[in-house]
Amino acid sequence: MTLLTNARILTVDPQMREIANGWIHIKDGVISALGEGAAPADVASSANDVLDMGGDLIMPGMVNTHCHLAMTLFRGLGEDIDDRLYRYILPLERDCVTAPVVAAGSRLAALEMIRGGVTTVADMYYFEAEVGRAIAQSGMRGIVGQTLGDFDAPDHDTFDEAFALTDALVEEFDGHPLVIASIAPHAPYSTGIKIMARVAAWAEAHPKNPVQMHLAESDAEMAWCAEHHNARPVEVVARAGLLRPGLIAAHCLHINEAEAAELAGHGVGVAHNARSNGKAGRGIAPIEMMRAAGVTVGIATDGAMSGNTLDLFAQLAPASMFQKILGHSRSVLPARQLIRMATIEGARVLGMGDQIGSLEPGKSADLIRIALDDPRVQPIYDIYSTLVFALNASDVRATMVAGQWLMRGREVHTLDQARVVAEAIQVAGDFNRRIEALDRSMT
Amino acid sequence: MTLLTNARILTVDPQMREIANGWIHIKDGVISALGEGAAPADVASSANDVLDMGGDLIMPGMVNTHCHLAMTLFRGLGEDIDDRLYRYILPLERDCVTAPVVAAGSRLAALEMIRGGVTTVADMYYFEAEVGRAIAQSGMRGIVGQTLGDFDAPDHDTFDEAFALTDALVEEFDGHPLVIASIAPHAPYSTGIKIMARVAAWAEAHPKNPVQMHLAESDAEMAWCAEHHNARPVEVVARAGLLRPGLIAAHCLHINEAEAAELAGHGVGVAHNARSNGKAGRGIAPIEMMRAAGVTVGIATDGAMSGNTLDLFAQLAPASMFQKILGHSRSVLPARQLIRMATIEGARVLGMGDQIGSLEPGKSADLIRIALDDPRVQPIYDIYSTLVFALNASDVRATMVAGQWLMRGREVHTLDQARVVAEAIQVAGDFNRRIEALDRSMT
Repeated sequence: MTLLTNARILTVDPQMREIANGWIHIKDGVISALGEGAAPADVASSANDVLDMGGDLIMPGMVNTHCHLAMTLFRGLGEDIDDRLYRYILPLERDCVTAPVVAAGSRLAALEMIRGGVTTVADMYYFEAEVGRAIAQSGMRGIVGQTLGDFDAPDHDTFDEAFALTDALVEEFDGHPLVIASIAPHAPYSTGIKIMARVAAWAEAHPKNPVQMHLAESDAEMAWCAEHHNARPVEVVARAGLLRPGLIAAHCLHINEAEAAELAGHGVGVAHNARSNGKAGRGIAPIEMMRAAGVTVGIATDGAMSGNTLDLFAQLAPASMFQKILGHSRSVLPARQLIRMATIEGARVLGMGDQIGSLEPGKSADLIRIALDDPRVQPIYDIYSTLVFALNASDVRATMVAGQWLMRGREVHTLDQARVVAEAIQVAGDFNRRIEALDRSMT
Repeated sequence: MTLLTNARILTVDPQMREIANGWIHIKDGVISALGEGAAPADVASSANDVLDMGGDLIMPGMVNTHCHLAMTLFRGLGEDIDDRLYRYILPLERDCVTAPVVAAGSRLAALEMIRGGVTTVADMYYFEAEVGRAIAQSGMRGIVGQTLGDFDAPDHDTFDEAFALTDALVEEFDGHPLVIASIAPHAPYSTGIKIMARVAAWAEAHPKNPVQMHLAESDAEMAWCAEHHNARPVEVVARAGLLRPGLIAAHCLHINEAEAAELAGHGVGVAHNARSNGKAGRGIAPIEMMRAAGVTVGIATDGAMSGNTLDLFAQLAPASMFQKILGHSRSVLPARQLIRMATIEGARVLGMGDQIGSLEPGKSADLIRIALDDPRVQPIYDIYSTLVFALNASDVRATMVAGQWLMRGREVHTLDQARVVAEAIQVAGDFNRRIEALDRSMT
């Protein structure tokens, strides 16, 4: 039993209760009680590990609702090049992405997220069992989605093979305390209506395993849906029967008010990737409109190929500014709402709202400790504003999932940092040699 | 004489030369030579201080082209409130902003910037001698501008008084190696054409002292210029004769192509405040269009009341994404251009392009050392992309201005961090009490 004392606590509970100085008691990985001031004598005496937080902030661990962990290995590759997907990424995935590469990239990603205060992540990629194993090793919580697509994916040639990989994934992680298997049709244009309908049937038979998908992300997707189905992406997915509770829809940039109502009505959650969308020049997802329509929206980093960082703090200011620009007002999407989206609302998007995302008795002890003493951070008038606009990932001092410290004093316990970084640099060397060959073949 | 060895060097010189592993020799605060590999024997033997950079990155110190240092004390105050300027900020400035308050806020700002790799800053505020003294104490390089405005400024009641303060500022910092006095008419709507014309005459008589001004920032300014002069802000300033070399124009959000050509033709530099503009919901300044028209554009943080941080790294990704969104393409404003804007082009905006902003023999040794070993940063395919999208202020390990280390090992030598932060928190307490009184008087 662990007792954290002398902490400034943001609960992100339904009342958004803030505790200027208080304590949290953790038993069997679960928050058993928390309160203001000093812990009651019976609570204090029951704890075998009493830790003084030195006035630091304790808040729920953050939830990254859409990521491709292994793509940390592509961070900054083909930067600023419009056709980089076809020129570099797809050839590299076909030629160089293997199970060990996915494992190496996933470890790097988990390391980065733990150091940045992310405790839960939803992933979709290939060789997904490797992603699940890396997340399990890291001690993070994760949803791991086997991707299905009609391009030459590195781990399957046919959709039948992809479904078989998904079933194996479900079997491997059945009952795992931290990792949940998921199915991830890539996008309407790369999966097609028939396969999406098959995924919907699969999902019906697997109520514990969420579905993840890119949706309404790009102009090219809009054009494909118009050409092939005379419809917009949401309508295409609806026709396949895939608009359902448990669907995690990433991006949702091209969404109108009727579609937002439809997503809300079907209990679809949205993963908002502000930096990824912005960096690609795609535009601004209308998340404030979607939230007003009742859609639950979480914050996401996307893969580091698209957003370059798995630092969820780095998403908050852009996500806020984008909506203020769209709404032409400083008051749109206040800072506290962004912290809700990065924690409890993200948890709801992943179907975990009853288990994580806020600090309340009965919830898992997934929490982070943040230093507030940097000159960059002071003074503090509004702690939510501080978190959104002034803090950065390096201010996270410790990270706990299910009562286990994954990092303390900025030292990650579950992964060997030097080795993980060295592995990643080695893989990048292989990628670079392949890129040089690709560039030569084009000239 | 100092010799830095084993460094990865970004020169940001006209050829954008990069040195994978090299050395920099510094004599009397000036870069005397730099090169690849090991330093030549005569260079090495002349140095009395040889420092191994351990493969870290050395690049020019960054240039913050528009700031209000003392407003760090307002960081996050009145967040998300549309009328916060009239409701909180102006009353607080009238009632609480004194010379000691400005000194305290300026020290906090200098501390934050040194720790974030900013070596030069352009400031405009009140009690500007205090700002200049704080910058001088910190060892940074700065332009300090006495603000002139027709609202109840905290340090002057009339424009005559403001001009007198400016003259005293010029006298105090005449010949100072690091601090340059400047005059800062607040904005077209708060200064008026007659005063701007008087400023233009003053500037003509003081060729070494730049002029700073907010320009074309808000809808309200557009409306004021239309109502009073049947013109847009650039035209109003032109009529006053103030469009001239040495004018540092902050924001420039409402600029059309003809106005961009006019700014370029008159040698006006622009300070781009991406986060400040975005947070206010004002929109996106068309800096890519301005650059194409020949305008020199630097990066800026604005005051922490508006942008919440003086971390120039935190400006780079938003500045990039905003232009990519405007241009609807990933290829707009490549990462390397942002690094140029944050260094050499910012230096040119401030009229210091021959002295700082790049690492070249004969230039001042204003440079920063950056660690690249964080998992968040690796792998690196494109160092400019890494700087813009993956690094943060906490990765800056050391900061040097004119050959003097202001920070080493993240320890600032010129300011007492604990004391500066404590002072700032104390002032914020006074502000909070005044805010409570203001809120009571409104209800």
